[in-house]
Amino acid sequence: MKNYFKLKSIYKKISKFKNIEAIMHWDQATMMPSGSSEARAEDMAELSLHIHQLSKNPIIPELIDLAYNEISTSEEQSCLNEIKRSWSNSNILTDDLVQAKALAGAKCEHAWRTQREENDWISFSQNFKTVVELSQEEAQIRAEALQTTPYNAMLNLYEPGMSTNELDNIFNNIKCWLPNLINQVQQKQQNEPYIKPEGTFPIKQQKEMGLKVMKTLGFDFNSGRLDISLHPFCGGTSQDIRITTRYDENDFIQSLMGIIHETGHARYEQGLPQKYRGLPAGQARSMGIHESQSLFFEMQIGRSSEFISYLAPLAQNIFKQNKQKIFTKDNLKKIYTRVQPDYIRVDADEVTYPAHIILRYEIEKDLMNKKVSYKDIPEIWDLKMKKYLNLSTKGNYKNGCMQDIHWTDGSFGYFPSYTLGAMYAAQFMATIKNQIDVNECLSQKNLAPIFKWLSKNIWEKGSLLETNDVIMQATNESLNPQYFKEHLESRYL
Amino acid sequence: MKNYFKLKSIYKKISKFKNIEAIMHWDQATMMPSGSSEARAEDMAELSLHIHQLSKNPIIPELIDLAYNEISTSEEQSCLNEIKRSWSNSNILTDDLVQAKALAGAKCEHAWRTQREENDWISFSQNFKTVVELSQEEAQIRAEALQTTPYNAMLNLYEPGMSTNELDNIFNNIKCWLPNLINQVQQKQQNEPYIKPEGTFPIKQQKEMGLKVMKTLGFDFNSGRLDISLHPFCGGTSQDIRITTRYDENDFIQSLMGIIHETGHARYEQGLPQKYRGLPAGQARSMGIHESQSLFFEMQIGRSSEFISYLAPLAQNIFKQNKQKIFTKDNLKKIYTRVQPDYIRVDADEVTYPAHIILRYEIEKDLMNKKVSYKDIPEIWDLKMKKYLNLSTKGNYKNGCMQDIHWTDGSFGYFPSYTLGAMYAAQFMATIKNQIDVNECLSQKNLAPIFKWLSKNIWEKGSLLETNDVIMQATNESLNPQYFKEHLESRYL
Ligand SMILES: [Zn+2]
Ligand SMILES: [Zn+2]
Repeated sequence: MKNYFKLKSIYKKISKFKNIEAIMHWDQATMMPSGSSEARAEDMAELSLHIHQLSKNPIIPELIDLAYNEISTSEEQSCLNEIKRSWSNSNILTDDLVQAKALAGAKCEHAWRTQREENDWISFSQNFKTVVELSQEEAQIRAEALQTTPYNAMLNLYEPGMSTNELDNIFNNIKCWLPNLINQVQQKQQNEPYIKPEGTFPIKQQKEMGLKVMKTLGFDFNSGRLDISLHPFCGGTSQDIRITTRYDENDFIQSLMGIIHETGHARYEQGLPQKYRGLPAGQARSMGIHESQSLFFEMQIGRSSEFISYLAPLAQNIFKQNKQKIFTKDNLKKIYTRVQPDYIRVDADEVTYPAHIILRYEIEKDLMNKKVSYKDIPEIWDLKMKKYLNLSTKGNYKNGCMQDIHWTDGSFGYFPSYTLGAMYAAQFMATIKNQIDVNECLSQKNLAPIFKWLSKNIWEKGSLLETNDVIMQATNESLNPQYFKEHLESRYL
Repeated sequence: MKNYFKLKSIYKKISKFKNIEAIMHWDQATMMPSGSSEARAEDMAELSLHIHQLSKNPIIPELIDLAYNEISTSEEQSCLNEIKRSWSNSNILTDDLVQAKALAGAKCEHAWRTQREENDWISFSQNFKTVVELSQEEAQIRAEALQTTPYNAMLNLYEPGMSTNELDNIFNNIKCWLPNLINQVQQKQQNEPYIKPEGTFPIKQQKEMGLKVMKTLGFDFNSGRLDISLHPFCGGTSQDIRITTRYDENDFIQSLMGIIHETGHARYEQGLPQKYRGLPAGQARSMGIHESQSLFFEMQIGRSSEFISYLAPLAQNIFKQNKQKIFTKDNLKKIYTRVQPDYIRVDADEVTYPAHIILRYEIEKDLMNKKVSYKDIPEIWDLKMKKYLNLSTKGNYKNGCMQDIHWTDGSFGYFPSYTLGAMYAAQFMATIKNQIDVNECLSQKNLAPIFKWLSKNIWEKGSLLETNDVIMQATNESLNPQYFKEHLESRYL
C-alpha cells in the first residue's frame, strides 16, 4: 500500500493549502479592509500557484497506476477513482490555456460589472468572445479525453456522471408541464392578496433570528460561523464552515431564507465523512448534490407550511416593534410561495426558476458544441424567454443575457446544478416522507430524524459513490423529475 | 544584478506566505470557532513547514555571495545585509534542534497554563529544564557563529546590534535611581486620592470610544481593523494590520490604553517603506523599536496631561449613563499615572515596569551564559523582587517566576525589548519637543506634526539602518537612559 499511502498524503497536503485558501477567501469577502485588496490578491495568487504546482506533481499519475495494484476494498477503489478524476481534471489543460482563460475571465468579469449596468452588450461581447473561444478550446480538449461531446465534458466538471442526453430528457419533460403550471399558479394567486413587509427590521434583530433558525436547523456553531458579505456564500472548510448573508434593513424575507439555504450547504459540509477528510473522496459529491442540500433546507423544509408556522411567531416576537399584521402564518406563507415570472434568475421563485435554467442550459450547450455563436445569444435569449416565461428581453441585455456572472469567467456547465439540486431535493423528500412522518417532525420542531436520513444517505457518503448510486441507494431509483413536479403541484395548486 | 533580483524575488515570495500565515493567525485568535482548532493546527503546521522550506533554499547563500558583487547603492547594501541576517538566523540551527525546541516549548507552555494556576513549580520545572537546555544549546551555536557570548546571541534575535555590555550599563544606571524614585512617587501619591470607575461600561460604547481614539491617532482603517481576542496583539500585514483588544464591562481604563498601545504598533507597520515591501529591509527594525512606537503612543502621548484632557470629555460623553465623577481630567490622569509596586509585570505601571524587566534580564542572561541553573530561579527571583520592589515571592511561583509566557517556549532575550522601547520612546519625545511644540499639538488635537516626525525618522526607515544609526540620526545621540529618567521625574514627581 506504499504508493496508495503516498498518494493520499500528497492529496491531504494539497487540501491543507486549500483549507487555508478557503479561509483567506472568506476573510477577503467579510473582514478585509478594502485598501489591502491589491496586496492580498498578490498573496492569494502565490498560494494558488503553490496549490497548482502541488496538484501537477508528475509523480501523481505513476502513483495512481501503482496504487491500483495495491488496493482491495471498494472504499479504497472509490478513493483512488476520485483522486484520478481530480488529477485528470486539473492536469488535462496546459498551463498556458488555464492562464489565458483565467486572465480573459477576470478581464471579462471585471468589465461586466459596469457594462451590465450600462446595458452595453457590444463592449461586453468583445471580451466575452475570447472567454467563449477559450472555453470551447477547453471543452474540446476535455471532450477528447473523455470521449464525449464538448458540453458533456464541461458538465462533468460540476456534475460528474450526468449526461446531455439525460438532461435533455429531464428538461424536455419539465418543459412540457412547466409553462402551464406557472399559468395555473398565477391564476390561483391572483385571488390571494397578502401584506408586504414594511418599515424597519434592524440588522441586529435579523441576525438574532438567523442564528435562532440556524440552531433549529442543527448548524454546528462549534465548527462554523455566520457573517456578512456582499454576495452570500458558504465557504471555509468542512471543519470550520463560514456562511454569509446580506441584510436589508427594509426587508428580512430574503436574508432569512438565504440563511436557511446556506445552512443546508453548511450542514452537508459539516456532515462529510471525517474518515476521508482531505481526500477527494471525502468531499461533496457534486454541485448538484450540494445544491440539493441547500434547496432541501430552503424549499423542502424552509418554505413548508409547517416550518413557516414556526418562523411566523418567532419573527413576530423578534421584530416586535413592527406593528404590521405580516407575521401570521398565512401571510408569511403567501410571501414565501409567491410565483411571478420575471427577468432575473437569482430573484426567481421555485416554480419559474427551472425555466431560467433550461434557457441557459440550451444556450450554453449549443455554444460549447459550436451550434451557435456568442453573437446569437441575445436573440435566442429573447425567443426563449418569450416562450418559457412570456417576457421579452429585446435590447434589454442587462436583465437578459448579461445578468449572470457565470459565463463571464467561462463556467459553462454549471447552471444545470441549480435545477438538478431542486429535483434531487424533491426526490429525497418524497422518499423521506415514505419513511418518516415529516409533517409531524416539522410541526414538533423535531427535525433530527430528517437530518439523520440526510446524514446517512447523502452527507456521510462524501464522494464514495457516483452520483447516480447515491440517488439509487437513497431513493431506490434514478433521478426522476416527477417528484419535483408533484412537489410543485402539491405546494402551489 | 541578476542574482540580487533573484534573491529579492525569493524573499518576496516567502513574505507572501508569511502574510497569509499572519492573517490566519489573526483569524485563529479572533474568529475561528473552537471546534476547528485541531484541524487548523494541522493546516498551519503545513504552511509553516512550507515557509521553513522556502527559507532554507540552499541556493540562497550562493546568491547572497554573488549579489554582494553586483550591488552599488547603500540601500542595496542594507537590503542584502538584512537578507543575510534573516538567512543566517533561520539557518544556523539544525532542523532537529529547531523541532526539538518547538516541541519542548509547546509542551512546557501548554502545561504551564494549568501549572501556573496551581503554583506547581516542581512539575513545571521538569518541562522547563528541557526548554532551558535546548535554549542554551541554541545560544551556544548562535554565539559561536557571531563570535559573542550565548546571551548576546539570543538578544541579537530581538534587538540586533544591542549588547550585554551596553544593557548592563543602562540597566545599572536605572537601578541607581529607580528604587528611590518609586518611593518618592508613592509618598507623593499617598496624598492624592482618586475615584475608581465603577458600574457598567458597555462593550459597544468602549468599542466606539476605541475607534474614535484610533482615528485621532491616525490609524488607517482602509488598511486595518480592530477586533477582540483573549490576548491583545497587533497582527496581520503592513497592508492589512489587525489589532485586537479585550473588553471588561466593569472597566474601560485598561482596554482603552491597550488600544492606544496597539495603535502605536500598527502605525509603525502601516508606515513601513512601501518600496521594500516583502523584503527583510522593509520590515520593523527590532522588537525594541516596535515597542518604542507602542509605548510612544501609550506613554508619551496617551498618558500625557494634554491627551487625557481630550480623553476625559470624550469618555464622559460616550459613557453618559455612568453618573460617577470619574471623567474629570484630573481624576483620569490620576488613574492613568498611578504607581504601585506589585508582583505582575503585565499589570505594572510605567515607573515600576523597568524593575520587572531588569530582574528578568539579569536572570535570563546568567541562565543562557550558564552562570545559574534553572533550579535557582525562584530563589533569585525572590531576592531581586525584595531588592527592586520590596516584595517577597517566596513560595509564590504563580505570581513570581511562573507568571510570564516568554520563557516557557524559550524566548530568552526578548524581555529587554520592553524597557528599551520605553527608553527609545522617551528619547524620541525629548527630541521632538526640541523641534515641535508638542504640548500645543496635543492640546489642539493636531498630532500630524508628531506623526510626521515618527514617520520620517522611524517608520520609513524600516530596517534600512542599524538600530543605533536610527537612534543617532533621529536624536543625534545613542540610546541614553537619562531621557527616560527625566520623563518619569517630570510626570511623576
Ligand atoms: Zn446554493
Ligand atoms: Zn507592545
